Amino acid sequence: MKRKWIVGLLLWLVAGSALEGPARNKVSVAEKLGFARDAKLLIVHADDVGMTHAVNAATIKALESSGVNSASIMVPCPWFPEIAEYAKAHPDTDFGLHLTLTSERVYYRWGPVAPRDKVASLVDPNGYFWHDWAAERRIDPKEVELELRAQIERAYAMGIRPTHLDSHQYRLYENGKDVFEVLLRIAHEKNLPFFVVRDWFAEHPYLESSLSPTDIVIDHTVTMNPSVPPEKWAEFYTTAIKNLQPGVTEFVIHVAFADEEMKAATRERDTWGAAWRQRDFDFFTSAEFRQLLAQQKIQLVNWRELARAR
Amino acid sequence: MKRKWIVGLLLWLVAGSALEGPARNKVSVAEKLGFARDAKLLIVHADDVGMTHAVNAATIKALESSGVNSASIMVPCPWFPEIAEYAKAHPDTDFGLHLTLTSERVYYRWGPVAPRDKVASLVDPNGYFWHDWAAERRIDPKEVELELRAQIERAYAMGIRPTHLDSHQYRLYENGKDVFEVLLRIAHEKNLPFFVVRDWFAEHPYLESSLSPTDIVIDHTVTMNPSVPPEKWAEFYTTAIKNLQPGVTEFVIHVAFADEEMKAATRERDTWGAAWRQRDFDFFTSAEFRQLLAQQKIQLVNWRELARAR
Repeated sequence: MKRKWIVGLLLWLVAGSALEGPARNKVSVAEKLGFARDAKLLIVHADDVGMTHAVNAATIKALESSGVNSASIMVPCPWFPEIAEYAKAHPDTDFGLHLTLTSERVYYRWGPVAPRDKVASLVDPNGYFWHDWAAERRIDPKEVELELRAQIERAYAMGIRPTHLDSHQYRLYENGKDVFEVLLRIAHEKNLPFFVVRDWFAEHPYLESSLSPTDIVIDHTVTMNPSVPPEKWAEFYTTAIKNLQPGVTEFVIHVAFADEEMKAATRERDTWGAAWRQRDFDFFTSAEFRQLLAQQKIQLVNWRELARAR
Repeated sequence: MKRKWIVGLLLWLVAGSALEGPARNKVSVAEKLGFARDAKLLIVHADDVGMTHAVNAATIKALESSGVNSASIMVPCPWFPEIAEYAKAHPDTDFGLHLTLTSERVYYRWGPVAPRDKVASLVDPNGYFWHDWAAERRIDPKEVELELRAQIERAYAMGIRPTHLDSHQYRLYENGKDVFEVLLRIAHEKNLPFFVVRDWFAEHPYLESSLSPTDIVIDHTVTMNPSVPPEKWAEFYTTAIKNLQPGVTEFVIHVAFADEEMKAATRERDTWGAAWRQRDFDFFTSAEFRQLLAQQKIQLVNWRELARAR
């Protein structure tokens, strides 16, 4: 989890580099989509759909009120069938798959879709995904591939037609070239764009070196981090919006209603907990957020549109 | 599910037979526990613990307010870790294992604890337990045994010391001798009493013929059934309590709070749904219920006590 906010903070350090370096002489994603080179394009992306009913209900409400324009779904989670049903009934909604290899909570847990004896390096002694991947944990990339294929297969079988792929808790980006290349191989095979951000290349050079020329690279990402106190939530996002750089930025947000289920599921720690997610819901469904987008001349794009830029 | 209320109704047809037939010349369970032969002993048993947070929270509250004195836990369900933690911290609470082979809801589902390719007859094409066992479904008793052993192993590994075993949706009783004998074999091996009711013998003779002389047999069971309208809930239970027969009766009840999670998890049908379970919670935690028990001179026993009668 620690890396997540470091990634978030990194944005602030490197923001503005979108037009520097390797991207300078290429046609940008914005241009391929028909926007000006300096257009500010934003994906407001809700992660973790399927995790709980409270996440599903809040995500659906945020999508339908246009506060969020893209989201990704966790196939191994118990509330996956609820969101699969919704996705099938709303085929135009921009749902990707939030490929999941960890089960980070204490009182509410999930495990692999693949047979667990075939993905032994991914599961703890009780058969759940590990809470986290400790540095010394040996993760078998072949088992990662088997599990991701099982998740994607279940998603298609239950009626989802994903627009993109991304990775729960950034596991597929931060754990070496072999694991990242599993994502890449599957994404290319399924012809799906996947979330990868130019700002991450400095920390993980294999991300850039493994990519194909046609892969879409997002310029920036913004995500809330635990150093921001609750009363500064709107200020954090407002600052991010007012300082949005040209190119494509993805806001990675986590919405849920802070009801009994969500409070119980996340009660061992506040980070990415029920109140955190309610604050994200409240900000991104607010009139304030919509006014900021208009004032700053920010255009929303989703992954279905980005796919056309390839 | 249909069989469940037939079982419930059967009680009313055969109630009173406890002192008839095979039991007549034997020392009764009540006597073995030191009660008079005509004592009225009651287990107020909450099923389905672990299914959702709303079930866990309501069961804990009902146990702590003494409205319920025994309960059983579904190991494959996502909220199992929450109740395992509670059970470990409350080792005197009478928790059994509610052995689970079906995932009967639509929007919220679970699958096997054993590797799913090793229990292929138990899982649907998406990897969840079947919603129900259709008459033509071929269930492999060897796979039932593998799965039940995996559930029991996870329960012990996560700190539960079960007082008894029973079966979600009566699957282990109603699907033939081979399946019932899996329960019997495991219960004997683990030295655990298991829920089986004399009133069921007429419909399923193999239940009686498979038992060992030392197995505990409950005389009667009462459970709510879908023909009872919500406004008659208290009347149904009150009638059952006032007509309680000598011997040991288990009230099989289903408690939960009718909150957002529970309403969403059960929204496709009302039977055993959120409102149903809230009504069970309300009745069994009421002063009315406690007064009835006192008036009728009914003694509560739990499975830990029954185990001593063997």
